Amino acid sequence: MIVVMKIGSPQAEIDRMSQELISWGLTPEKIIGQHKVVIGLVGETADLDPLQIQELSPWIEQVLRVEVPYKRTSRQFRHGEASEVVVNTPNEDVVFGEHHSLVIVAGPCSVENEEMIVETARRVKAAGAKFLRGGAYKPRTSPYAFQGHGESALELLAKAREVSGLGIITEVMDGGDLEKIAEVADMIQVGARNMQNFSLLKQVGSQSKPVLLKRGMAATIEDWLMAAEYILAAGNPNVILCERGIRTFDRQYTRNTLDLSVVPVLRKLTHLPIMIDPSHGVGWSEFVPSMAMAAIAAGTDSLMIEVHPNPAKALSDGPQSLTPDRFDKLMSELAVIGKVMERWPQAALVAV
Amino acid sequence: MIVVMKIGSPQAEIDRMSQELISWGLTPEKIIGQHKVVIGLVGETADLDPLQIQELSPWIEQVLRVEVPYKRTSRQFRHGEASEVVVNTPNEDVVFGEHHSLVIVAGPCSVENEEMIVETARRVKAAGAKFLRGGAYKPRTSPYAFQGHGESALELLAKAREVSGLGIITEVMDGGDLEKIAEVADMIQVGARNMQNFSLLKQVGSQSKPVLLKRGMAATIEDWLMAAEYILAAGNPNVILCERGIRTFDRQYTRNTLDLSVVPVLRKLTHLPIMIDPSHGVGWSEFVPSMAMAAIAAGTDSLMIEVHPNPAKALSDGPQSLTPDRFDKLMSELAVIGKVMERWPQAALVAV
Amino acid sequence: MIVVMKIGSPQAEIDRMSQELISWGLTPEKIIGQHKVVIGLVGETADLDPLQIQELSPWIEQVLRVEVPYKRTSRQFRHGEASEVVVNTPNEDVVFGEHHSLVIVAGPCSVENEEMIVETARRVKAAGAKFLRGGAYKPRTSPYAFQGHGESALELLAKAREVSGLGIITEVMDGGDLEKIAEVADMIQVGARNMQNFSLLKQVGSQSKPVLLKRGMAATIEDWLMAAEYILAAGNPNVILCERGIRTFDRQYTRNTLDLSVVPVLRKLTHLPIMIDPSHGVGWSEFVPSMAMAAIAAGTDSLMIEVHPNPAKALSDGPQSLTPDRFDKLMSELAVIGKVMERWPQAALVAV
Amino acid sequence: MIVVMKIGSPQAEIDRMSQELISWGLTPEKIIGQHKVVIGLVGETADLDPLQIQELSPWIEQVLRVEVPYKRTSRQFRHGEASEVVVNTPNEDVVFGEHHSLVIVAGPCSVENEEMIVETARRVKAAGAKFLRGGAYKPRTSPYAFQGHGESALELLAKAREVSGLGIITEVMDGGDLEKIAEVADMIQVGARNMQNFSLLKQVGSQSKPVLLKRGMAATIEDWLMAAEYILAAGNPNVILCERGIRTFDRQYTRNTLDLSVVPVLRKLTHLPIMIDPSHGVGWSEFVPSMAMAAIAAGTDSLMIEVHPNPAKALSDGPQSLTPDRFDKLMSELAVIGKVMERWPQAALVAV
Repeated sequence: MIVVMKIGSPQAEIDRMSQELISWGLTPEKIIGQHKVVIGLVGETADLDPLQIQELSPWIEQVLRVEVPYKRTSRQFRHGEASEVVVNTPNEDVVFGEHHSLVIVAGPCSVENEEMIVETARRVKAAGAKFLRGGAYKPRTSPYAFQGHGESALELLAKAREVSGLGIITEVMDGGDLEKIAEVADMIQVGARNMQNFSLLKQVGSQSKPVLLKRGMAATIEDWLMAAEYILAAGNPNVILCERGIRTFDRQYTRNTLDLSVVPVLRKLTHLPIMIDPSHGVGWSEFVPSMAMAAIAAGTDSLMIEVHPNPAKALSDGPQSLTPDRFDKLMSELAVIGKVMERWPQAALVAV
Repeated sequence: MIVVMKIGSPQAEIDRMSQELISWGLTPEKIIGQHKVVIGLVGETADLDPLQIQELSPWIEQVLRVEVPYKRTSRQFRHGEASEVVVNTPNEDVVFGEHHSLVIVAGPCSVENEEMIVETARRVKAAGAKFLRGGAYKPRTSPYAFQGHGESALELLAKAREVSGLGIITEVMDGGDLEKIAEVADMIQVGARNMQNFSLLKQVGSQSKPVLLKRGMAATIEDWLMAAEYILAAGNPNVILCERGIRTFDRQYTRNTLDLSVVPVLRKLTHLPIMIDPSHGVGWSEFVPSMAMAAIAAGTDSLMIEVHPNPAKALSDGPQSLTPDRFDKLMSELAVIGKVMERWPQAALVAV
Repeated sequence: MIVVMKIGSPQAEIDRMSQELISWGLTPEKIIGQHKVVIGLVGETADLDPLQIQELSPWIEQVLRVEVPYKRTSRQFRHGEASEVVVNTPNEDVVFGEHHSLVIVAGPCSVENEEMIVETARRVKAAGAKFLRGGAYKPRTSPYAFQGHGESALELLAKAREVSGLGIITEVMDGGDLEKIAEVADMIQVGARNMQNFSLLKQVGSQSKPVLLKRGMAATIEDWLMAAEYILAAGNPNVILCERGIRTFDRQYTRNTLDLSVVPVLRKLTHLPIMIDPSHGVGWSEFVPSMAMAAIAAGTDSLMIEVHPNPAKALSDGPQSLTPDRFDKLMSELAVIGKVMERWPQAALVAV
Repeated sequence: MIVVMKIGSPQAEIDRMSQELISWGLTPEKIIGQHKVVIGLVGETADLDPLQIQELSPWIEQVLRVEVPYKRTSRQFRHGEASEVVVNTPNEDVVFGEHHSLVIVAGPCSVENEEMIVETARRVKAAGAKFLRGGAYKPRTSPYAFQGHGESALELLAKAREVSGLGIITEVMDGGDLEKIAEVADMIQVGARNMQNFSLLKQVGSQSKPVLLKRGMAATIEDWLMAAEYILAAGNPNVILCERGIRTFDRQYTRNTLDLSVVPVLRKLTHLPIMIDPSHGVGWSEFVPSMAMAAIAAGTDSLMIEVHPNPAKALSDGPQSLTPDRFDKLMSELAVIGKVMERWPQAALVAV
């Protein structure tokens, strides 16, 4: 931590502050510049809040952090090594991580009925997906919009899981539902709108199912890693970070701006596995394939893609969902990139 | 709702869509333009989700909403009249609304101990505040930062309420804490990070205490009104909307960008009372007074200002909190603007 | 300037860097932390580019600036005193500055014909404005939109100036037009889209007319002050900074987000006078009055307001322009706030 | 164009407006909804400015455009076909376009001296680049930073061009320099900060060299296409669109947010070729390779990568430039993706 003093700070005040900092167990080291005095704090500063130091004196101009504020989430915490998140699914143990094959998650926005969810599960499994996503509890901007079928949807997910052998990923919106969701889900999703719902983060951190943590629409990388830190600090080390687009000034042609640069940035900062959700990222199915391709080339560990069958209305595409047929085609396109990146699963080679 | 068809849409598809829309109880009216066909939907469209219509056909280019998606929150819902939110406090019933005096809320970020919270309550009451704010449960970016004293802080707030007669505003972060918070608080705050925690919105909507709904950092005005709609739809009409700064590209000199234009915009769109929080809006105490002045001139119904005493360290200012002395001075400055705006409370005239 | 070295940086590399920095005339002072080495650079560092230092070694983690990068623009450059920008207009010398009366600038977006510009000039002068704004060369998003009447519009501005005695502010978009614009204009505007057109900044810096520098839509405060620095560095000290709204994620109800917090922030950082343009800031005339009021309460030195007469179409309001009648009313509203802020001009007291 | 009237609009006003619109040569078609009247304008509306229509009546709630405002730039203008931009370089005619091989542009930020620029040209050519980029006139945030060597740098670029046979791309910042730049450059760059410098756009549109148009930091896709429209409307059809990152709320780990979704979006909207500049997009060389890979997988037609040799300081990396050795390695990595995307040039196959 570096403390920059204002021009003209009185010596007495600098001395007073230094004494105070020493009493906190830190060693302040002064650099007397031409115009300003700068104090470097030596010691255990990672936990300190810069605002806390700022309050020490009105003569402080700024406090600059030189240590990152996250610990368990940081790459250094594992001495530079990537972590693996192993998820038990009916078919197999699926491993997410930098040195493992790409994991594909697919499925509809929400679970509508048994036929559609079981059919989707069969189709995405045949195409090479390892997980079925599907919402039982849905975060909707409007209170009048469909809020998900809740518990009965969980039962349908259990059925789809049983039939297909796929792992299940579904979102928790309320800590009170966590237990019943955890009975069905193999991985629990915390959505973008709840990324800084700290109560919920503590609750998913206190149970044992792996957690998929989506990035908030206005969350910086640091905010996001701190949210993951809440889960790790609560005892659950199995967290996957999922980018789903951030909110920017241009929302005319894509709903969000998919920030693919998180892939190399997160790789440097954290050991946690990375997932990219191009469907929410761009919001229109026609742009999803290019972004899915790009995500693999950027080095993601996993992809989440919305797939929705609509057998009754053959022409329907849905704004951001792919049909199972389009998904099949996409999987064979992704395999081409995935193979040259040496991240495409062997088994799936057969499937495509 | 207006549906714009792509250039070259087949007549058969337009007919099919029209039949479908008629089966939904709507009357589609076609306009055949030079290049495109546009279909206006006549009927009860306010509840419809544009995405739902978009899914009807791949030939749809865009769906434009001409009705606002919020109902109970809209100004029209009350035929153009402002609503009043009356809050019972020990001293008096305080009324928030466009045709009432400005209500000042003040207090510390978090409740630290009895002495500080009681002392702050006394000081801000003497200066003219009607409510004491103070956090018992604190949303903190870091899991290692002080998370608030929780239940014991609620007891201290009860004490401060009793001693000062001020109303209490404090934040709920977890639905499970709602009951015990509601025993002490006269108004319950939903923080910016939980603005789209829809479970929590439903819960605060199902109890009777008035709710202070802070704008999310990346929430559009429409998102915000829809969040309020959740509370109203759940049965609680007493909601106050609080702007506290949005996240933009420039975060060097102010932590957030305080969007004061919400005042005239919300006044037009909704009947709900408006509060401005300049302390979080700018993040540095030295910029708070100018923004508090501006908020009154813009026409806000209420202000929330952070005040924190620090008797042991006379020099301390705190990054975004005012000292009680600075708050006294600010109140006399605000009174000057408040009076010419004809919004300053009579009683407070004596106090300043 | 503070250089933070990566964990594990070799001592030899730190020594090599230190030697290099000494050869630049700087004194590097090391602080050996628990995990990292931090080097403070003592000497003349304000001109240094952090990126230039970053290139010194791949072992550098980050370079933090502790001095601001602007000099002539900084408040310190004038030892904390505000500067005055005096503009000669036919009627009088108008002074912009923190310790002077508010200056009101009003007029249409673009100069359409003699009748409308002369009429507008008369009306806004009668209401208390000191300057007429009006575009001869117009920055338009579309090449097919009206681009301004150019030179012939300059003649009409000259006529309006002569008739009304008001000062003229008009925009330059091309350095080649500067000379003929300067013959008519009393102040030259550099628009938001050209705020980082460095060639143009140098050109307006090399002539003697005062310059109104609008903030770019995505310009940070620092970018903006650096743009002003170009003008000051080129020899022209008479610069006024004009906020006109920044681009953010919410553009549904206001075209831009008017950032009024620039008033206290600029006051602290720079000695230059401040203008607020609420018309472009919000983009809809109905929201302009509230924001004009707020700007005065925040402490602005000047306001720019769009006024457009439309005698032929009595009902017309125009999306962001006020009618002369509405402007008259606004001026009497502003006078109320302006007087209690002790910034309202004496002469104008009579007029309103 | 769709005009939405406010609730309760008087019939007389709707009739008056309709008459006015008919006098403009348009056919207004009314849809009478439950609450609102909507008027569809049939006729030649692409050139109309929605604001112009908005001014027609204060009873207009909003004007929605259903035609895109750009014409020559639109994909429809070429009946859905991609355009080819052919650039004559000493070695060959290089073709940019959707159905052609990827074109790689590489080189330093600015031309420092003959040795470095000639050496860079040789190295990037050997690695497979077709163009050398290098700044003679540099847009710099600070007036005190190196502004480029100007005319003498142009001579050095001419030398590098002659020696290597590469095409030259360099930036114009001032219309007055255009002629001498065009003598050396094979393609002329308009930088992000000048994307809406409409005078400059008209000038580069009036000469014959192809133009590389970088996206402004806060430019929407529509703003960007309209800027290109200025160039096409002025007579120059050879424009390439280059994404270089937009400004968002998170600038801690990447300088800008590289928006790769522009690739599929632009492909749909326009016939113009697309270039991605990952170097400016992320701002740190270590993140450039992943983003270059991703850009190819997303389907870009071209890449611009900063390469800077620093022979005297072997350890130097530079914040966003690759060394020639790292660039060699990157090219062989890119070739792998480029080949499976069937976009890698045959000749370059040999080189890598």
